[in-house]
Amino acid sequence: MLSKNQLKKIRALHISKYRRQKKSFIVEGPKVVSEFVNSKFNVREIFAIEEWVNKNSNIHNNITQISHKELQAISLLKTPNQVVAIVAYPTQEDFQYKENDLVLVLDSIQNPGNLGTIIRIADWFGIDKLICSKETVDVYNPKVVQASMGALTRVEFYYTDLANWLSKLNSKIPIYGTLLEGENIFKTELSDNGVIIIGNEGNGISPEIQSYIKKRITIPSHNKSIMESLNAAIATAIVCAEFKRK
Amino acid sequence: MLSKNQLKKIRALHISKYRRQKKSFIVEGPKVVSEFVNSKFNVREIFAIEEWVNKNSNIHNNITQISHKELQAISLLKTPNQVVAIVAYPTQEDFQYKENDLVLVLDSIQNPGNLGTIIRIADWFGIDKLICSKETVDVYNPKVVQASMGALTRVEFYYTDLANWLSKLNSKIPIYGTLLEGENIFKTELSDNGVIIIGNEGNGISPEIQSYIKKRITIPSHNKSIMESLNAAIATAIVCAEFKRK
Repeated sequence: MLSKNQLKKIRALHISKYRRQKKSFIVEGPKVVSEFVNSKFNVREIFAIEEWVNKNSNIHNNITQISHKELQAISLLKTPNQVVAIVAYPTQEDFQYKENDLVLVLDSIQNPGNLGTIIRIADWFGIDKLICSKETVDVYNPKVVQASMGALTRVEFYYTDLANWLSKLNSKIPIYGTLLEGENIFKTELSDNGVIIIGNEGNGISPEIQSYIKKRITIPSHNKSIMESLNAAIATAIVCAEFKRK
Repeated sequence: MLSKNQLKKIRALHISKYRRQKKSFIVEGPKVVSEFVNSKFNVREIFAIEEWVNKNSNIHNNITQISHKELQAISLLKTPNQVVAIVAYPTQEDFQYKENDLVLVLDSIQNPGNLGTIIRIADWFGIDKLICSKETVDVYNPKVVQASMGALTRVEFYYTDLANWLSKLNSKIPIYGTLLEGENIFKTELSDNGVIIIGNEGNGISPEIQSYIKKRITIPSHNKSIMESLNAAIATAIVCAEFKRK
């Protein structure tokens, strides 16, 4: 049974402002909830229907059994999936770039689906640190959480003023940027470490951030008549694969 | 002004059954409509608000000026964008595989956004032929059209019984399939020609179609704890880039 107060508290987390206030976010569905339970994240509360509760007697978090109707009321999915969990924000430490790190830097990714997909790609290729501009969509936005699946438990985030962060990097660190006009990525020698900047869906990398790029790279098209650029997540996939194919 | 009859006729094209009956589909927005007008496609009718009509006096198709409210009524977008065009299906000729072709084969891609993205990727890398299983989502589904943008004007489609089509291919033609367990694609010698099979989002390539694969390839993950596979469109992007990076 869900009290009115609980209902209100959970639904508030659908909104970015309250997530930041409560330092908590929502995770849904048996698969993803189980990945969070088995991760370093602190799963504060679990609300689940009987079916899930019976199957998960090994989980000892704070569980409240609820009805299908109550699940519907707290879920953000069109088809709610058994369980909703409230997870605490991880403690954010200041990100330290280490000499051998290869990190992705996101300059204002706006679409939650794109950010979720980029997190899965980073995770797939073993890139475990993402630096995001303050304008990048909230990583704990429920659509990002849903799209990134378990990858969110394995990749670290750091939201910061990008220009300031880039300006303080050791000058020996390679800084790559994906642009429409740059060196053919398939013919460029890519380093094992460094920073790869991915631009916004519509506007690419902002002029201020572009000024920090030391190597401009591009994914060449085989088709001169194309007017659009590749989708940001697709470009990220190809770039990460190229850096990590060795 | 839109007659009741016209309104009904256009809205019918939101539904797959009527699109097949009328052999026509809907395209929206100035950019994509202009790509279709300038392509080999036959744009049958254009419905647009005054702003678009005034800017496009050079277009001599069958144009009807409509109000914002009428645009809202025929559009499938949350935010309609000036113009809706009705475009005729291209005449479907039987697809002939030519010796040097590199083609993508889609085994039941279900998500319209994924299919649209795959079409853009194919177009980007100069792969201009897509063979689709009959279970693959309709390429003229409005969400596919919207996601693929102008790429749809440059890539050819052929919906067929895949097993039958594959069984008739010359035995010298390489047939690749992307699977979770296969040879590391980054260490495999890939041919310039051949057939690349992409599987369904949830189930991968069906067992029947798998039996035609001559080279099983996989995109290796750097992270052993991942339980999910890569999204079908992301996998397609990495595979196409790898075939075409030379």
